Amino acid sequence: MNAEILTVGTELLLGNILNTNAQYIAKRLADMGIGVYYQSVIGDNPERLFKAFELGFKRADIVIATGGLGPTKDDLTKEIAAKVTGKELILDDKALEMIEKHFESLSRIMTENNKKQAYLPKGAKIFYNYKGTAPGCAIETGEKIIILLPGPPREMIDMFERSVIPYLSQFQDGVLSSKILKVCGVGESKVEELLGDLLDSQTNPTIALYAKLGEVSIRITAKAKTEEEANLLIHPIEDKIREILGDNIYGEGNQSLEDVVADLLIKHGKTISVAESCTGGLLAARLINYPGISSVFKEGLVAYSNEAKMKRLKVNELTLNKYGAVSKETAVEMARGIAVTAGTDIGISTTGIAGPGGGSSEKPVGLVYAGLFIEGELYSIKLNFKGDRQEIRERTVMSVLDWFRRYLIKTNS
Amino acid sequence: MNAEILTVGTELLLGNILNTNAQYIAKRLADMGIGVYYQSVIGDNPERLFKAFELGFKRADIVIATGGLGPTKDDLTKEIAAKVTGKELILDDKALEMIEKHFESLSRIMTENNKKQAYLPKGAKIFYNYKGTAPGCAIETGEKIIILLPGPPREMIDMFERSVIPYLSQFQDGVLSSKILKVCGVGESKVEELLGDLLDSQTNPTIALYAKLGEVSIRITAKAKTEEEANLLIHPIEDKIREILGDNIYGEGNQSLEDVVADLLIKHGKTISVAESCTGGLLAARLINYPGISSVFKEGLVAYSNEAKMKRLKVNELTLNKYGAVSKETAVEMARGIAVTAGTDIGISTTGIAGPGGGSSEKPVGLVYAGLFIEGELYSIKLNFKGDRQEIRERTVMSVLDWFRRYLIKTNS
Repeated sequence: MNAEILTVGTELLLGNILNTNAQYIAKRLADMGIGVYYQSVIGDNPERLFKAFELGFKRADIVIATGGLGPTKDDLTKEIAAKVTGKELILDDKALEMIEKHFESLSRIMTENNKKQAYLPKGAKIFYNYKGTAPGCAIETGEKIIILLPGPPREMIDMFERSVIPYLSQFQDGVLSSKILKVCGVGESKVEELLGDLLDSQTNPTIALYAKLGEVSIRITAKAKTEEEANLLIHPIEDKIREILGDNIYGEGNQSLEDVVADLLIKHGKTISVAESCTGGLLAARLINYPGISSVFKEGLVAYSNEAKMKRLKVNELTLNKYGAVSKETAVEMARGIAVTAGTDIGISTTGIAGPGGGSSEKPVGLVYAGLFIEGELYSIKLNFKGDRQEIRERTVMSVLDWFRRYLIKTNS
Repeated sequence: MNAEILTVGTELLLGNILNTNAQYIAKRLADMGIGVYYQSVIGDNPERLFKAFELGFKRADIVIATGGLGPTKDDLTKEIAAKVTGKELILDDKALEMIEKHFESLSRIMTENNKKQAYLPKGAKIFYNYKGTAPGCAIETGEKIIILLPGPPREMIDMFERSVIPYLSQFQDGVLSSKILKVCGVGESKVEELLGDLLDSQTNPTIALYAKLGEVSIRITAKAKTEEEANLLIHPIEDKIREILGDNIYGEGNQSLEDVVADLLIKHGKTISVAESCTGGLLAARLINYPGISSVFKEGLVAYSNEAKMKRLKVNELTLNKYGAVSKETAVEMARGIAVTAGTDIGISTTGIAGPGGGSSEKPVGLVYAGLFIEGELYSIKLNFKGDRQEIRERTVMSVLDWFRRYLIKTNS
């Protein structure tokens, strides 16, 4: 069984956006063992769309199309897919209800053209949209299948994981089971080097690496008759990887770094506050991603100016004058200052040069210090990053959380 | 004249890498006014490559292929392109010399298989590679053109800018110019409804809408002999759109909402501080995206707990008990509290239920209040969002910044 990926949208043809959907779908199909020989991108043009579906049917068993399911007249993918497969579009009551509820919850009036999204090819398997308005579907012709998915990545990904993977697995002999290990503090090529032969020699389970800003996910995927059997294949490989990477593995599955840090804090009953300069609120925002954080997170302060550092965090004026705002000395005083004023067990701070301006040969853009105050002790770390303002700040948050995680593991094990 | 982009590589089909080359080429071709109706991705497979070139010749005047020019046996793009166009591959002395020099400069020994890269289709216009080893080329058949480019983005981009653009400009009559207007506070389908006929009736310039979380971009693109003439076509359409959408247009080009808000604050010399509950630092972090913000942004406080709201922001305990933390009353006290304690002209606050827990029928997940203290006056806004925790928080930040922007425009015009 093989598939062709068809991403629809003039904004892709014009190069306005990156085709992350094609990559995502390709990766997930590869995980499932479904071959992809072609990916195509076309605009919202009825004739070319029609031909693309016809061509896809010649070249593949399944054509998976994303995009062009919106409410506007430009959005034609569903209409053309219905035409290619000879299906009529009929109103799906549940889809309409979900769209209406979506608008209701936003306190916005549903426009008449949104109704168009609730019309779906007769007999299609409908994939409801829990993140937006456009439902997706699978249209079966007996020999071939068209799968239609919305274009916005978060809607597409949610629908793919929730509905498309279970749908596609019915055509598979056996089941596929995956385990994801999450790694921080070592880059993708280093992980590849460390895992070495393990990566190349594996066919079942397979091991795949996925890198994103500041972290790497390792997906171990096994195919077997039952999920239990697949998991039995995964275990020994997981053990080997854990042995090699040790504490660099911070979590598994959907766990985020902040989840792990928050769990450790809650487990050990430690309260925390953060004082941020260069990260400007991102570190607090990341911790607050964790829904149950309020029992341990007491306060965050964005002290961007020296004035705020002195007034709010009791950073010594002499420290700022002698060492500068971006220094180990300022970082630890900020960490202590927030912990003392907020009355928490732990204080964490960041101060650095996120750019584009403000750098010097001595303190270049990308230089960041973080401070940690815990149980009366002060620690600091010096970091160096490359990239734009946003990237430097996001990498800082990841590195500081990881540094703190390693501290918590070491002292509490 | 139109082109088809063919990116070659199994790593793309497997989703191991993002297809940034296709986006880059698409964008540069759009800038030149060369239409692209199809992008295709295929693996390093001789039969499928051959068919892809044949299909490209049916659908486009130029097929631009990247990837598969490397020294290994897997790299077949050039060989197949020569076969499709009936050209022989012959050794190009300059190309060989450049490859030899490249290895010399790296103090590495050139392997025998690198010689393969110096063989190019007879009669082709050769694009030498100044960043790597594989030269590119343009093969003309009389009616159609194949352009071959290396896969590594930095080599491809250098070659494209240095050689391909000058090569293609000989075939051009005219240029393409674009203007982007950025909209906040109305959704994509509402924008479409408001623009109505304008969207459909336009052919030159064309108008296209692109939505992302909380905002919509409108791209107006005109084709003309010169850039000045193209801009003359754009102006009246831009004026009409501005007339229809008014203040919903917050900026243009690459401007972000925080850029516009920061510019307004700096222009009017107003200082600001923010107090955040549900957004947990994201609002401060967004403002601090703006590199010059330090002259107006004084302080951010993440007051997630009631304790911090009282202690740090002087929110009245009675207010919290009577109206709750998520209320108009708490929001305005937070806004005033941060402005007073930070000593700024303006204070902004957020307090809401980001979920997944904590909602009730009276105060559901997604309910958010924002407060604004400015020149002694207090304002508030009630917002309702749907989505996950992260989305509710990001939408809150967009909406609050937009609300504040509208206030600043109204009071300062």
